[in-house]
Amino acid sequence: MLWLDLQKGKRQLNGMMSEDMPTQHEALMLQAIELAQRGGGTTHPNPRVGAVVVNRGEVVGVGWHKRAGGPHAEAVALQVAGKRARGGTLYVTLEPCSAHGRTPACTEAIRRAGIKHVVYASPDPNPQMSGGHKILEAAGISVTAGVLREQAEALNIPFFHYLRTGRPYVIAKAAISLDGKMATRTHHSQWISGEASRLHAQGLRAASDAIIVGAGTLKHDNPSLTVRGVPAVGDVPLRVVMCFETPKFFADCKLLSAEAPTRFYVRSINTHTEQWREAGIEVEQVTSLAGVLKHLAEDGRLMLLLEGGGELHASFLEARFTDELVLYQAPILIGGRDAIPLWSGQGVDSVDHAPHLEQIERRILGVDQMIRGRVIYPD
Amino acid sequence: MLWLDLQKGKRQLNGMMSEDMPTQHEALMLQAIELAQRGGGTTHPNPRVGAVVVNRGEVVGVGWHKRAGGPHAEAVALQVAGKRARGGTLYVTLEPCSAHGRTPACTEAIRRAGIKHVVYASPDPNPQMSGGHKILEAAGISVTAGVLREQAEALNIPFFHYLRTGRPYVIAKAAISLDGKMATRTHHSQWISGEASRLHAQGLRAASDAIIVGAGTLKHDNPSLTVRGVPAVGDVPLRVVMCFETPKFFADCKLLSAEAPTRFYVRSINTHTEQWREAGIEVEQVTSLAGVLKHLAEDGRLMLLLEGGGELHASFLEARFTDELVLYQAPILIGGRDAIPLWSGQGVDSVDHAPHLEQIERRILGVDQMIRGRVIYPD
Repeated sequence: MLWLDLQKGKRQLNGMMSEDMPTQHEALMLQAIELAQRGGGTTHPNPRVGAVVVNRGEVVGVGWHKRAGGPHAEAVALQVAGKRARGGTLYVTLEPCSAHGRTPACTEAIRRAGIKHVVYASPDPNPQMSGGHKILEAAGISVTAGVLREQAEALNIPFFHYLRTGRPYVIAKAAISLDGKMATRTHHSQWISGEASRLHAQGLRAASDAIIVGAGTLKHDNPSLTVRGVPAVGDVPLRVVMCFETPKFFADCKLLSAEAPTRFYVRSINTHTEQWREAGIEVEQVTSLAGVLKHLAEDGRLMLLLEGGGELHASFLEARFTDELVLYQAPILIGGRDAIPLWSGQGVDSVDHAPHLEQIERRILGVDQMIRGRVIYPD
Repeated sequence: MLWLDLQKGKRQLNGMMSEDMPTQHEALMLQAIELAQRGGGTTHPNPRVGAVVVNRGEVVGVGWHKRAGGPHAEAVALQVAGKRARGGTLYVTLEPCSAHGRTPACTEAIRRAGIKHVVYASPDPNPQMSGGHKILEAAGISVTAGVLREQAEALNIPFFHYLRTGRPYVIAKAAISLDGKMATRTHHSQWISGEASRLHAQGLRAASDAIIVGAGTLKHDNPSLTVRGVPAVGDVPLRVVMCFETPKFFADCKLLSAEAPTRFYVRSINTHTEQWREAGIEVEQVTSLAGVLKHLAEDGRLMLLLEGGGELHASFLEARFTDELVLYQAPILIGGRDAIPLWSGQGVDSVDHAPHLEQIERRILGVDQMIRGRVIYPD
């Protein structure tokens, strides 16, 4: 499920509230989901979680997880409720943790507060944290699981994706022409997409943990890879350049600015490396794409935005590492056998082997169309 | 204006009728436009024209042009009205002709019928036919011109386009992936688009005067280029193959079927020519793209459908002969530097020189999206 589907889920639910009378559970879980969203991009690598405490039909406490190391959503909501939690129901988007980690176990806080009923959306997929429902039941607290589970999991796509696959969630974005070109034969690309598309793309940057480009983009475009024109969401995204070897140093490289941290992943270290390091760029030697993803995940960077160029998109698609595609399609034709396509590389041999998009969202942005969907690879 | 805009115009007008009270002129002209549409594809090379005769608020006659050589719309409507035309108003989508061609001049028929007022949408762009309004005014008949002109002209895009440019109207259609490929690196393309798209494309074929493919498509796909699954619109479209030299004869060529006439345009005649001619294929030697368009126009074929492949699309786009583009975009990615792009060839050097689409229509067809618009070339 895409992030956007959370919005769709909300619309559906809003529809239900007027037409189909949702259960009270769903209405209150929706409130917990909305609270969780306030966690923005500051909770990583933890998931965003929201909680609501209800007693005798009245909301007596709300909370959300703000930052790794800080109190969990349940603990905040219970603290707000205080004595009014006694005998009440706790709604929480994720199964309460049963382990004392950086903060005390939530199951214990729930028991102490005198909660009689816990309703949650998703089971905790983290094996170190799961099992909360058993401990609650053993303490005589009734448990209802799975309420609005899909919408709640959409809050934390990178988190769930990482626990399932061991890899960060990769969104590839590109501005392309109707004929699939990202630049003309002379590498000219400013601007294929319009202002509304570029602003939307800034929103993707803001929500990312890292923004990744290839060495060709560094050389041809000298991009700044900063978030501009949209509100920041959590921490400033890391700027990443993937190269075969350390590129030649150039002093007007916009990534040398102090606005955001920058890291080069190189397959081989060469004589240029020290110059970049002295200028404040981190240079890491990693010999495979999978290795780069692993290194970023260990660093807590679970939401990656791939900005191209064509070789980078090709290598991620051919390794099946691209999870979601966001295209800003301008109504123009670029043409030319030497123009830069979205996906150069090898490509597929037959149409049946082509990856396809699912859960597609199409949105008009100025004269462009945004086309976004989950990338599904054939078996 | 695209054909589709006629529909839009109708919707807008329907909106007006309930909300904005259109003039009686517009309401009756709309009726004339709807009558004209019944001419389907059978009037070519004449335009489609409709007419309504009104007397004392009552419609007393309607008519439309059915076939070149047959009576004009005005003549039919006046004949239906008979004596009730006297003192009435004639609504007609095109300025009445003043010249006696294959049928008598309509201005004369209008005068004889005793019509007092003529309302028309478009001036006749054909210099041999125009000037009707002056003859009517000289006969003491009042004339109102330009009512719903845009909608009326949308009825006859190829006709007006030909009179303006001297060329047939060319629609290029293609089924492509999100990354702009028409086939994989192995030339595999069946099927990029789904059933709903293919049915829609049959509708384009039915409305065409000729369906054109390149020699590569003949060789790789052996297409039948017939109209299937949709109602016929007028005459069966001519099947056209454009080649540098006459292709080698092959007996299982589907174009040898008697379902539709077939013509090869070749730049040079060779020893294979006679074999094709004996099998019923017309082979014409024409040395330029412009020459082919001229030859087709002289044959009354003003609406051409270009079906590819890539080289054909490229040559038409680079000659600026493609007037409208219809893409069936499947939500798949094909990739590969050797895959077949929509527009190979030279392409443009900078984004500012890229042709763009205007009057864009986007429609979901199954899982595909149809994207259609008028191609505008930069100066």
